[in-house]
Amino acid sequence: MSFDPSTLPDVSALTVGILGGTGDQGRGLAYRLARAGQQIRIGSRVSERGAGAAAELAAMPYTVAGAVTGGDNAYASGSDVVIAAVPWEGHAVTLRDLAGLLAGKIVVDCVNPIGFDGKGPHPLTVPEGSAAQQAAALLPDSRVCAAFHHVSAYLLTDPAVDTIELDVLVLGDDREAAAVVQALAQRISGMRGIWAGRLRNAGQVEALTANLIAMNKRYKVHTGIRVTDL
Amino acid sequence: MSFDPSTLPDVSALTVGILGGTGDQGRGLAYRLARAGQQIRIGSRVSERGAGAAAELAAMPYTVAGAVTGGDNAYASGSDVVIAAVPWEGHAVTLRDLAGLLAGKIVVDCVNPIGFDGKGPHPLTVPEGSAAQQAAALLPDSRVCAAFHHVSAYLLTDPAVDTIELDVLVLGDDREAAAVVQALAQRISGMRGIWAGRLRNAGQVEALTANLIAMNKRYKVHTGIRVTDL
Repeated sequence: MSFDPSTLPDVSALTVGILGGTGDQGRGLAYRLARAGQQIRIGSRVSERGAGAAAELAAMPYTVAGAVTGGDNAYASGSDVVIAAVPWEGHAVTLRDLAGLLAGKIVVDCVNPIGFDGKGPHPLTVPEGSAAQQAAALLPDSRVCAAFHHVSAYLLTDPAVDTIELDVLVLGDDREAAAVVQALAQRISGMRGIWAGRLRNAGQVEALTANLIAMNKRYKVHTGIRVTDL
Repeated sequence: MSFDPSTLPDVSALTVGILGGTGDQGRGLAYRLARAGQQIRIGSRVSERGAGAAAELAAMPYTVAGAVTGGDNAYASGSDVVIAAVPWEGHAVTLRDLAGLLAGKIVVDCVNPIGFDGKGPHPLTVPEGSAAQQAAALLPDSRVCAAFHHVSAYLLTDPAVDTIELDVLVLGDDREAAAVVQALAQRISGMRGIWAGRLRNAGQVEALTANLIAMNKRYKVHTGIRVTDL
């Protein structure tokens, strides 16, 4: 069948938790989803920092009133869908600690294991193959997908940007969970949520972020990708 | 500086050789470049097969008269720019044998090390990191770039398709050689040639082809990618 977003589920009533919601990518996704009217729970290692970030987001232009609350990562884990936007360094430890709370939940990994040296960005080797596969290994009772790797935090958090034209590649073996994540991506103005393969094909999608960063640096832009012929 | 194709070199007078030019991707690239007026040398393991493929291409609609000739891979290697479009299985052996002839040349690797099993496409592990890095290791005296990974052979070879809207990601440490490859991509109607990182970032670009194949299968399309904000 062709790509048809109208077949995706209605996710407007789902709460979305963001682990590491005080970081650039987490804050940016929270802002865009809150702007679309999604109920958001910001999580942080420290409860006060999560609450503070939520208050800041709630005060930003176009955020729907009451859409954002915050607390620690356990608080964020009490949502219907939980996005893991933690730094790669803390990825394994954070998820392992929350495994019980995340059981049964749709967990969306958007972490990019990227390193930097004198020659610029490059993908890091992940023993499990990808951050997403590491998440799946640590959260055997969760429905793990991967998505939102290529969204520019800079554009996400700029209130003056009202639409962001790019595609969100959604990886996952659980097609029903993936469809929820696709629908969530579609909530953000300008974005499409496209199923782009099984979780074992997440590694190259995460690593491609190194190429986008290289292009951003070379051409002074904030790149994303669009899938053509779709 | 921003992306500006007008700064790229004029490559219209360069001859382009295609190793493995009888395969789908090689034939397709040869057809598009010949249609753009580029002088093409098709190569094959067997000289007669290369010559036969060239005769077939020359007879296709819109091919510029006299633009395509063919022979063995050594014949193709006598071009200014040489595209390696051989099957992954024959990649290392073919390049090793041609190393002497390819010295000093710009070599463009477009090989995707992809495997298939019951669960669909997936990237293969390459000891050197990527097909392009393997090429660079085997051809220390060539100027190795990587590009043309995400072009659909189906669209390339369909004469009724007059423009193919997608971006060609060009990887390479030699910026001058990369600019030639970018300019070559720009010769094909609808395509942009974008520098997308050093050769060490080629692996994920090659592997992303597995995701495009998964999308093609799921959505019944012929996907490519566009870089946004550029």
